[in-house]
Amino acid sequence: MCRWLAYSGTPVLLDNVLYKPQHSLIDQSLHSRLGVETTNGDGFGVGWYSTDSDTPAIVRDIGPAWNNRNLREIADHVRSPLFFAHVRASTGTAVQQTNCHPFRHGRWMWMHNGAIADFQRLRRDLCLAVDPALFSCIEGSTDSEVMFFLALTLGLDQDAPAAVARMAGLVERTGHEHGVEYPLQMTIAVTDGVRLWAFRYSSQGNSRSLFYSSQVESLRALHPEMTFLQDVSEETRLVVSEPLGDLPGAWNELPESSYGVVQPGSDELLPFAPQPA
Amino acid sequence: MCRWLAYSGTPVLLDNVLYKPQHSLIDQSLHSRLGVETTNGDGFGVGWYSTDSDTPAIVRDIGPAWNNRNLREIADHVRSPLFFAHVRASTGTAVQQTNCHPFRHGRWMWMHNGAIADFQRLRRDLCLAVDPALFSCIEGSTDSEVMFFLALTLGLDQDAPAAVARMAGLVERTGHEHGVEYPLQMTIAVTDGVRLWAFRYSSQGNSRSLFYSSQVESLRALHPEMTFLQDVSEETRLVVSEPLGDLPGAWNELPESSYGVVQPGSDELLPFAPQPA
Amino acid sequence: MCRWLAYSGTPVLLDNVLYKPQHSLIDQSLHSRLGVETTNGDGFGVGWYSTDSDTPAIVRDIGPAWNNRNLREIADHVRSPLFFAHVRASTGTAVQQTNCHPFRHGRWMWMHNGAIADFQRLRRDLCLAVDPALFSCIEGSTDSEVMFFLALTLGLDQDAPAAVARMAGLVERTGHEHGVEYPLQMTIAVTDGVRLWAFRYSSQGNSRSLFYSSQVESLRALHPEMTFLQDVSEETRLVVSEPLGDLPGAWNELPESSYGVVQPGSDELLPFAPQPA
Amino acid sequence: MCRWLAYSGTPVLLDNVLYKPQHSLIDQSLHSRLGVETTNGDGFGVGWYSTDSDTPAIVRDIGPAWNNRNLREIADHVRSPLFFAHVRASTGTAVQQTNCHPFRHGRWMWMHNGAIADFQRLRRDLCLAVDPALFSCIEGSTDSEVMFFLALTLGLDQDAPAAVARMAGLVERTGHEHGVEYPLQMTIAVTDGVRLWAFRYSSQGNSRSLFYSSQVESLRALHPEMTFLQDVSEETRLVVSEPLGDLPGAWNELPESSYGVVQPGSDELLPFAPQPA
Repeated sequence: MCRWLAYSGTPVLLDNVLYKPQHSLIDQSLHSRLGVETTNGDGFGVGWYSTDSDTPAIVRDIGPAWNNRNLREIADHVRSPLFFAHVRASTGTAVQQTNCHPFRHGRWMWMHNGAIADFQRLRRDLCLAVDPALFSCIEGSTDSEVMFFLALTLGLDQDAPAAVARMAGLVERTGHEHGVEYPLQMTIAVTDGVRLWAFRYSSQGNSRSLFYSSQVESLRALHPEMTFLQDVSEETRLVVSEPLGDLPGAWNELPESSYGVVQPGSDELLPFAPQPA
Repeated sequence: MCRWLAYSGTPVLLDNVLYKPQHSLIDQSLHSRLGVETTNGDGFGVGWYSTDSDTPAIVRDIGPAWNNRNLREIADHVRSPLFFAHVRASTGTAVQQTNCHPFRHGRWMWMHNGAIADFQRLRRDLCLAVDPALFSCIEGSTDSEVMFFLALTLGLDQDAPAAVARMAGLVERTGHEHGVEYPLQMTIAVTDGVRLWAFRYSSQGNSRSLFYSSQVESLRALHPEMTFLQDVSEETRLVVSEPLGDLPGAWNELPESSYGVVQPGSDELLPFAPQPA
Repeated sequence: MCRWLAYSGTPVLLDNVLYKPQHSLIDQSLHSRLGVETTNGDGFGVGWYSTDSDTPAIVRDIGPAWNNRNLREIADHVRSPLFFAHVRASTGTAVQQTNCHPFRHGRWMWMHNGAIADFQRLRRDLCLAVDPALFSCIEGSTDSEVMFFLALTLGLDQDAPAAVARMAGLVERTGHEHGVEYPLQMTIAVTDGVRLWAFRYSSQGNSRSLFYSSQVESLRALHPEMTFLQDVSEETRLVVSEPLGDLPGAWNELPESSYGVVQPGSDELLPFAPQPA
Repeated sequence: MCRWLAYSGTPVLLDNVLYKPQHSLIDQSLHSRLGVETTNGDGFGVGWYSTDSDTPAIVRDIGPAWNNRNLREIADHVRSPLFFAHVRASTGTAVQQTNCHPFRHGRWMWMHNGAIADFQRLRRDLCLAVDPALFSCIEGSTDSEVMFFLALTLGLDQDAPAAVARMAGLVERTGHEHGVEYPLQMTIAVTDGVRLWAFRYSSQGNSRSLFYSSQVESLRALHPEMTFLQDVSEETRLVVSEPLGDLPGAWNELPESSYGVVQPGSDELLPFAPQPA
C-alpha cells in the first residue's frame, strides 16, 4: 500500500522529518519494513501550511520519492508547523499526480493508507454518494480520494471524527450490499490546518500499522540524529505509518479501531467505530 | 483544444505521416493554424493496430509531442495499417496520461477534439448514464473519455454511427436540462480496427475543422514530400483536424453535421444528427 | 530560445511576479512576443533564497510551466526576497531536469537565454577549459551550464562581472578558432544571494531583448494589477527577458553590450565587453 | 546497480520475455534477488531492431519499469529478433532519459550493469579520451555512456571484443593513475544488430552476476510458463543479469573474466582481459 507521515508542532524544515531520521519516510519509499509492499515508488506527495495562506501547498509527483530532486529542494528550504508526506504503492490504479496523496479541498488535507476491497465494483455507488456539488472535484481514480469527498459530504467541516465514522459506515454498508465481507482497511490523516486527526480502522480488525511519537522529551533521548528535536516545543507530535527508527519507547502504536487528535492543548486518543451515514 | 490525425490504408511507418509532412501533426503541436489554441502541448498519444493483436497499442505521455524522443523512436520503427495520433491542449483538466487520447476499450479506439460546454456541471449526470459495468473503466477526468464510454454504453459495438448519434443526443439533452444552450462541440475519430468513422458536429453548427484526404493519386501530386504515397494503395485515407500542408486540392473539409466512413471498398460521407439516447 | 525573470527586493509570494502580471512569465511560456520562439515549453525552473539557507532552492521540471501544478503551488506559498524563474525552448539538446535553468553551485545561481553558435563543435574545448575540480559538476548537456562553470572557473566568486567577461572572451576565442564568426548570444542573470547581475551581449551586436523595471513608484502606477507593488520597498527591481505588460514607461531596455547590478544601495548600469580569459 | 536482459533469436513479442517469465526483468525492477540493490526503479529502457531500419528503436523513461504503461503496450505489440531491456538503479547520477540504457550510436546498442569506481574523479580524463568527433554525442552523465563512447573510440566497429578490452584497459589505467585500486566493475551487452556480445569482468575478480540461457530444448522443459519457447529456433538465446526463474539447469553463469558471442551459427564463450588502449 503506502506509507505516510504527519507532523504538527514547532515550525521546522521538512528535511528534518522527511530525510534526516534513521528510517525516514524517504527510506521507507525504498525499503518499507511494515508495509504490505516493501517498495512505495508509485508517486509521492507533500503538503504543508505556511503563514501566507489558509490553504496548504500540495506538491505531488509520479516518480519515486527517493530520487526526486525537487522534493529534496523543498525539504531543505521550506519550514512549516503542520505538514503531511506520503509515498505511494499503487494497487493497480494509474500512476498520476491526481492519484497521489495528500488530497486537498479548501483548507482541508487528507491522506490514506489502505484500500476499499473490491473498489472497482463499489466505485460507482460510492461516487454517487458524494455531494453532487463536490462530484466534479474528483480528479483521480483512487478509493482514497473518493473517501475524502465522502467525508466532506458527510460533514468533515463540522465534526471531523463523526464525518470519518460516517464515511466508514457508508463504505462498509455499500461493500456489504455488494457482498464484500471486509470492505474497509484504512489509516487516515486529516487536518484543517489547526487540528490533526489520525484514524486506524479495518472491517476485519486487522489494520495497517500506525504510530504516534512519544513525548518530545523521550524522543530527544531516543533519536539523537533528529537534532531539530532540541528546538521544538512539547506540543510537537508525529504520526507515522511506521516508526522512523528501531527504538523502543519512541513510538507508540495507535490501537485498533481508534483515532488520535493532535491539537493545541492536550492531545486525545479515542475509540473509533463506523457510523450510519 | 486539440489536433488529431487518423490513418487507414497500406501499412506505413508512422513517421511518414506524423513527422514528414510539411505541416505535420507534430508541427501542429507547436504551431497549429486552425485550432482554438496555437499550442497543443499538454500531452499526446498514438495508437496503432499491429498484426499481433486485435487490440491497438496505445502510447501516451504528458509532455509535448514536439520534444518527445520516444514518440520519434516509435514513429521511426513501427509500421501500421491503421493508427491514430493526437496532440492535446487542456482546457483545465489535469495533464495526465489517462486524460490523453486516444482512449481504448477492447478493440475500440477513440479520440476527440472539442468540448462539452460546462462539463464540470454536467459531469455527474453524464457519468451516471454510463453503463455501470463500464463506470469503473473511467480513469481520467475528461469529457472526451466520458463521451467514449457513453458511446460504448449506447451500442458502439453494434452500430457505431448510431451510438455516436445517441451519445450526442444524450449530451445535448443533459446540457439543456442544465441550461446550457450549446452543449456539444466535437470532431471524433473512432475505429474497431477495421472501419474508421470520423464525425464533425456542434450544437451551434459551428464545428471545429475536419478534413479528409483526396484520392491518393491527387495527394501524390500535391504532397511530393510525402514520398511514402508512391507505395500506398488507392484505399489509403487520412482524416485530420487540419491539413498537413497548404495545397488546395489535397484536403477536403468534412461538411458541418456529417460523418465519414473509411472502410474496405468505397468510403462514405453521410449526414450526422444527434438522436435520442 | 528561452525567457527568464529575476526578482530582487522586498520578500513577496512568487505568484505575484510569476503569474499575476498581464503578460507574465508563465504566459510567455505559451505566447512569447519577443522571443525567437513563441513557445517556451521544454521545461522550466525556479530558484529562490529563503532565510533558512545560504543556498537557493532550485525546483525544475521537464514539462511546460503553463500547466505545471507544482509550480503553481510553490508560487502560492513561497515568499522570497530574491528569485529567478526560467522557461525553456530547447534548440535540440535533451529535455531533462539537468538542462533546465537556473543552475546552482553553492550559493550561486545562474540562468541564460541565448546560445553559443555551433556549440556541439565547441563543446569539448569549452568543457576542457572548465576547472577540473568543477568538471564533474556538469550534469547536463547545455551551453548554458558550461558557460556557468566557465564563469566559476574564471573567478565568479571574486568578481562576477569580470568572470563573465572572461567567460565571454573565452567562448569567442574558442569559436573563432573553430571558424565561427559570431560565437556568442547571451542574456544572463547571476546572483550570489545578495547582489544580482544581468548581462546583455552578443558577438554580432544584435542581442536578445532584456529589460529592467523602472522605479517602483512608476511601476505601481503602470501595473495596477501587480497589487503587491503597494507593499514593496523602493529597492525592489525586476529584470526580464520581455516586459510583463504593454505599458510604456514601466520597462527599460538594457542597452546592447551592457550589464546591470542590482544591489543594496544604488543599482548600476555599466558597459560590458568580453575579456581575455 | 541495475538489471538487464538481451534477447537474440526467433522474432517474438517483447512481452514474452519482459513480462511473462516467473521472475521477469519487470519483476526484478521491483524485487531483484542478486542485485546490489533490490529495487531498480530509477528509469528503464528497451531497444529493439525491426525490419524497417538498421538502427534500433530506443524507448527510455525516467520512472520505474514496473508501473509504466507505455512499456507494457510496446511489449504487447512489438515483435523483434534482437532486443535489449534494462532497469536502472542510480548510484547518484541524475534520473534522466539520457542516463537510461540502452545507449545507441548508429546501428550499435550498449547497456551496462556495474560502475567505474570513483567515477566523478575519473570522469574528465575518461571523457578526454573519447574521440573528439564523438565527444558531443555524450548527452548524459553516467559512467556507462562514457564507457560506450570509449569503446566506439577504440574500434568497436572493427572488433567489438578488442574494443571493449581496450576500454576496460583504459579505465583501469586511468583509475590506477588516480589511486583507485579496483576501478572497474561491469557486465556489458553490446550488439551491432547481427551479433551480440556479453562481457563479465571486474578489476577485483568479483563481478556482478551474468547468466546465459541453456539450449532452447532445456529451457522449454524448465520454463513451461514461457510458452513462446515452443515456437523459437534452437539459435534463440537470452543473456540476463539474473535468472528469470529458480530452475537449476535453465541458466548458466558466465564465468568471471569472460565474454560470450551470440551469433548466426555456433555461439562462443571466451576469456576476457583488459588490454592497453
